[in-house]
Amino acid sequence: MGIVCTDIAVSADGFAAGAHQSEAAPMGEIEDGALHAWMLQDYEGNRAEVDVILDAGATIMGRNMFGPVRGEWDRDWRGWWGDEPPYHGPVFVLTHFPHEPIRMEGGTTFHFVTEGIEVALERARAAAGDRNISVAGGASTVNQFLAAGLLDELRLHVTSSILGAGERIFEGVPAQRMERVSVRATSLVTHLTYRPARA
Amino acid sequence: MGIVCTDIAVSADGFAAGAHQSEAAPMGEIEDGALHAWMLQDYEGNRAEVDVILDAGATIMGRNMFGPVRGEWDRDWRGWWGDEPPYHGPVFVLTHFPHEPIRMEGGTTFHFVTEGIEVALERARAAAGDRNISVAGGASTVNQFLAAGLLDELRLHVTSSILGAGERIFEGVPAQRMERVSVRATSLVTHLTYRPARA
Repeated sequence: MGIVCTDIAVSADGFAAGAHQSEAAPMGEIEDGALHAWMLQDYEGNRAEVDVILDAGATIMGRNMFGPVRGEWDRDWRGWWGDEPPYHGPVFVLTHFPHEPIRMEGGTTFHFVTEGIEVALERARAAAGDRNISVAGGASTVNQFLAAGLLDELRLHVTSSILGAGERIFEGVPAQRMERVSVRATSLVTHLTYRPARA
Repeated sequence: MGIVCTDIAVSADGFAAGAHQSEAAPMGEIEDGALHAWMLQDYEGNRAEVDVILDAGATIMGRNMFGPVRGEWDRDWRGWWGDEPPYHGPVFVLTHFPHEPIRMEGGTTFHFVTEGIEVALERARAAAGDRNISVAGGASTVNQFLAAGLLDELRLHVTSSILGAGERIFEGVPAQRMERVSVRATSLVTHLTYRPARA
């Protein structure tokens, strides 16, 4: 059976997105590359980590990661990623507002789950088969999974920027012990992998 | 000339102390060893980092790191560290309330600075000569130095605990770029060293 894992790029001060996120600035008002330069400018140096991200059998994300629409689905929105999103499989979007599935090119289908994270995880697990399930973000979705003890592996990709404000990883997550299972430094980022500590 | 550096142990979620700090629980209500097990239980494994901490020519700390007394100095308090504190040199304590210097055994003298961090740094620099100046903590003192751009090197010792609450590193520190100059992982901690990014 696959594991439930998160890959999330965070600043040195723990923000996964800057302040004032909007349709024009989906990651908030941050300096270009402050969070994702390692993926975009140094794919070769971080190939092992990027390939793992793309390998999930199913993906779960929060509605704000899917798009800027709030409240009722009052406009056609099919994600930030163009006609062929990089997921190539089922994506379960957490929302309070029902929506028909959206089938995209390249194998990605967006499913909309209104019953919360446990149901989303159940559906993702059924869809993923033996493969891993990626809780893709944003921070508040990851924090919900962490708080509920539902993540098997948390992979932080820590950059050297201080953002000063934004969406914070671990916000609202209660005290718990983890173990760090790997560390790898490349030129632009430090890859830190944690798992829940064995009792 | 020495550099101005900070060594601070922080949890995976960025706390340098837990919530509810008190005289009975100076680091707040946290699990034993959640922040400092690497120093106390694995000195050999982290000798390089610990030796650097102890090598400063002068130390600056916040009043809460020095002791639990608040407001006027209405009781005799000589630090948490017994008759022979581990600093073996001048320590400049930031406070709003004047106090005569306190000379301890082993070369440590506590000086009390009421004029703010710049004056404390000036006095520490004069005392340290060519050696480094350590901004020892707590988090709010480190954050003041970071926000003012006065730190040459920030050494985070990141543990695998989630504390969930407490004194947060980087709180109130505005956006800025740093560069990560080293990473070293030992069994209980990840040592991450940052410097301000060169323009």
